[in-house]
Amino acid sequence: MRMVDLIEKKAAGEALSRQELQFFIDGFCAGEIPDYQVTALLMAIFLKDMTPQETAELTDIMAHSGGMIDLSAIDGVKVDKHSTGGIGDKTTLVVAPLVAACGGKVAKMSGRALGACGGTIDKLESIPGFQVALGEDDFVRSVNELGLSVISQTADVAPADKKIYALRDVTATIASTPLIASSVMSKKLASGADRFVLEVTVGSGAFVRDVEGAKALAETMAEIGRRNGKPTVALITNMDRPLGRKIGNLLEVQEAAAVLRGEGPKDVEEVCLLLAAEMLYMGEKGSREECKEKAEQALRSGAAYEKFLAFLTNQGGKTDVLEYPEKYYPAPRCVTVAAERDGYLNTVNAEEIGKASMMMGAGRATKEDAIDVTAGVELCAAVGEAVKQGQPLFKAYAQDEKKLNAGLAILKENIVVSPEKPEEQPHIYGRVGGLD
Amino acid sequence: MRMVDLIEKKAAGEALSRQELQFFIDGFCAGEIPDYQVTALLMAIFLKDMTPQETAELTDIMAHSGGMIDLSAIDGVKVDKHSTGGIGDKTTLVVAPLVAACGGKVAKMSGRALGACGGTIDKLESIPGFQVALGEDDFVRSVNELGLSVISQTADVAPADKKIYALRDVTATIASTPLIASSVMSKKLASGADRFVLEVTVGSGAFVRDVEGAKALAETMAEIGRRNGKPTVALITNMDRPLGRKIGNLLEVQEAAAVLRGEGPKDVEEVCLLLAAEMLYMGEKGSREECKEKAEQALRSGAAYEKFLAFLTNQGGKTDVLEYPEKYYPAPRCVTVAAERDGYLNTVNAEEIGKASMMMGAGRATKEDAIDVTAGVELCAAVGEAVKQGQPLFKAYAQDEKKLNAGLAILKENIVVSPEKPEEQPHIYGRVGGLD
Repeated sequence: MRMVDLIEKKAAGEALSRQELQFFIDGFCAGEIPDYQVTALLMAIFLKDMTPQETAELTDIMAHSGGMIDLSAIDGVKVDKHSTGGIGDKTTLVVAPLVAACGGKVAKMSGRALGACGGTIDKLESIPGFQVALGEDDFVRSVNELGLSVISQTADVAPADKKIYALRDVTATIASTPLIASSVMSKKLASGADRFVLEVTVGSGAFVRDVEGAKALAETMAEIGRRNGKPTVALITNMDRPLGRKIGNLLEVQEAAAVLRGEGPKDVEEVCLLLAAEMLYMGEKGSREECKEKAEQALRSGAAYEKFLAFLTNQGGKTDVLEYPEKYYPAPRCVTVAAERDGYLNTVNAEEIGKASMMMGAGRATKEDAIDVTAGVELCAAVGEAVKQGQPLFKAYAQDEKKLNAGLAILKENIVVSPEKPEEQPHIYGRVGGLD
Repeated sequence: MRMVDLIEKKAAGEALSRQELQFFIDGFCAGEIPDYQVTALLMAIFLKDMTPQETAELTDIMAHSGGMIDLSAIDGVKVDKHSTGGIGDKTTLVVAPLVAACGGKVAKMSGRALGACGGTIDKLESIPGFQVALGEDDFVRSVNELGLSVISQTADVAPADKKIYALRDVTATIASTPLIASSVMSKKLASGADRFVLEVTVGSGAFVRDVEGAKALAETMAEIGRRNGKPTVALITNMDRPLGRKIGNLLEVQEAAAVLRGEGPKDVEEVCLLLAAEMLYMGEKGSREECKEKAEQALRSGAAYEKFLAFLTNQGGKTDVLEYPEKYYPAPRCVTVAAERDGYLNTVNAEEIGKASMMMGAGRATKEDAIDVTAGVELCAAVGEAVKQGQPLFKAYAQDEKKLNAGLAILKENIVVSPEKPEEQPHIYGRVGGLD
């Protein structure tokens, strides 16, 4: 078999066989197939697409390029959750304890991230003492006893994906549905769960900009799961505006806590309840309706919040950081920007707000950057809420004054007062896949 | 400027600007843009094409990536000729002396080749003593005094093309019209001639398989010439069957000599007379009709053959090799294959015949392979000519017995006796471009 023949076949719009995909991934991981052949194939895939079968097989092969996590020591159906990410997306922090409070088992590996804010692991690390690197025994014991644990992905999970992603990033082949789907799902398949709930975000603050594209991605990922014997459901959620009112690492943990106490923004609550209900449903805890009721009940009763605190404490986290952050971190500089006229709070471009957060220190531009856990943005009203002239519109936080000012300039153009009430947008655009 | 943005633009089907193309070629040649980004761009070009302006600009930039030959010391209009190649294609060996015998100036740089046989330079080197590396002074003096010289392309001609071609070869991006056209024409633009006559071959023994594709390639190359101020004409010639009856290095030189003596196969003569007439016409030696008459006259009078011998002698070649090859080379092993029944000589797949020649030693599979100048194939009749059972059908020559047998097996399947007379095919499909 020769790589050049595989490239030719794909460039002609034909589907590659499992043997050919295996040859490609094995050879690439072994250093036998050079990067320049891989990027030619990636561009051909980008422009000529892949069939559902190809995509599912590629994903499975990528998953097996490294270690496969074994969660068999955890009782019951293991359901994992993944979000394609967005500005202010703290759903995992809310959903995981919510599901555990309802009897679900959440054994989750998560990652760090580049961009607007850190990933879930970065956010959890804003809690002093929180251990993201439990041993396998502690991880399994935590899930069996407490119902949840979230740990950092090991380096060995789907190494083929890391290598492919690095090349896609510099060859303009990121925005390929089968390549995005196989990247996400290969890590999921390797992580050992039985079923998956995905949150596919769409809008100016998400990777996918249009609902059609998000549906295609959701369907592709659900189909990958199905074809690999791992039932998968995806909710398509709105990320045209930031989710909730806080963006940052510690800020988002605080907002997640507020949601779990029933005091959080309604958009976050709605999305999280739906995601939690899907996870419970996929974990066979009842009908969709029953699962939704269970999740609402766990939120109202305080059980979910209790579970959240128990989860943080179990992994060594100091939970009093939620109320007294200055006990652990120098208080950040804070600028409050007031509404310049009467109107309605509105956001222009969620991606820009994310970029501003990153510049202030909440996210990383490169892997080497350090995160300022206290940095971020807080909207002083929900999008669409009336604001009066002089009333606080938003607050920006950062330890570093220069970074604060750099972010502020962008924030002022993207968090604005509209004379007209902005159109209401749905939080959820639809659901794809499920238990079949 | 960032390479990733250029790749994205091309993948979206947009045209790159001259500045962007310059950035790409400069960066690639300087080692600043890695191969894996270049191959992604090449695949995007392969699948999304280039505009005529982009193609012309890319070609000019590639031409200027190395030294530009200065032929201003040669009087008159300098016309160069190039063939996209094929099985038994010895036209340069015939056309160059033919044109010089009519007063044209042929200052030609040519190359070695991979595949069925060597390139023109390899064929000339089958003449003992022939010097392919004249200094610039000798080259110019030869052209001014004798009307022609053919020397080996220097390593410095269009180095960007060499680097790009090496990547195309291993990434299935060879068959792209703008990339083929820019590869050919960048070397032509750098070689210093004023005008160009191209032979675009088409059929099973050529790189392009269908007449439509050949016309597109011919038009693209003529347009590159026009846009760069170098009028270019292209003849589209049939290569569905080998050209002439001999394939090999010394064998082709011998057949070229026969054509120049008026004793060669008619297909080679017809194509060469037309190419010579085009070269004379482009060199402003008269109308097309007058130029054709001049060429025919030079052939009939023996002047072209005299010029051929003078040309070989001028560069040190021993011309008696044409008649007495065994004086210089061990006589090759020869197998004569006879017709197994009455019928007509026919060829099945010209590419396979070329492959067999290569296997017998007439061509190179890799740059390091040595050529057996005596190896090759000789058809004992023209395609379509009647043959009787037991009469010689073809002969195969090689120094190495194993190689001979390997080639023979393929030749027997591709040089056959047809019960029906094979359809006559045109030698020329059309002409594109010209003096405008």
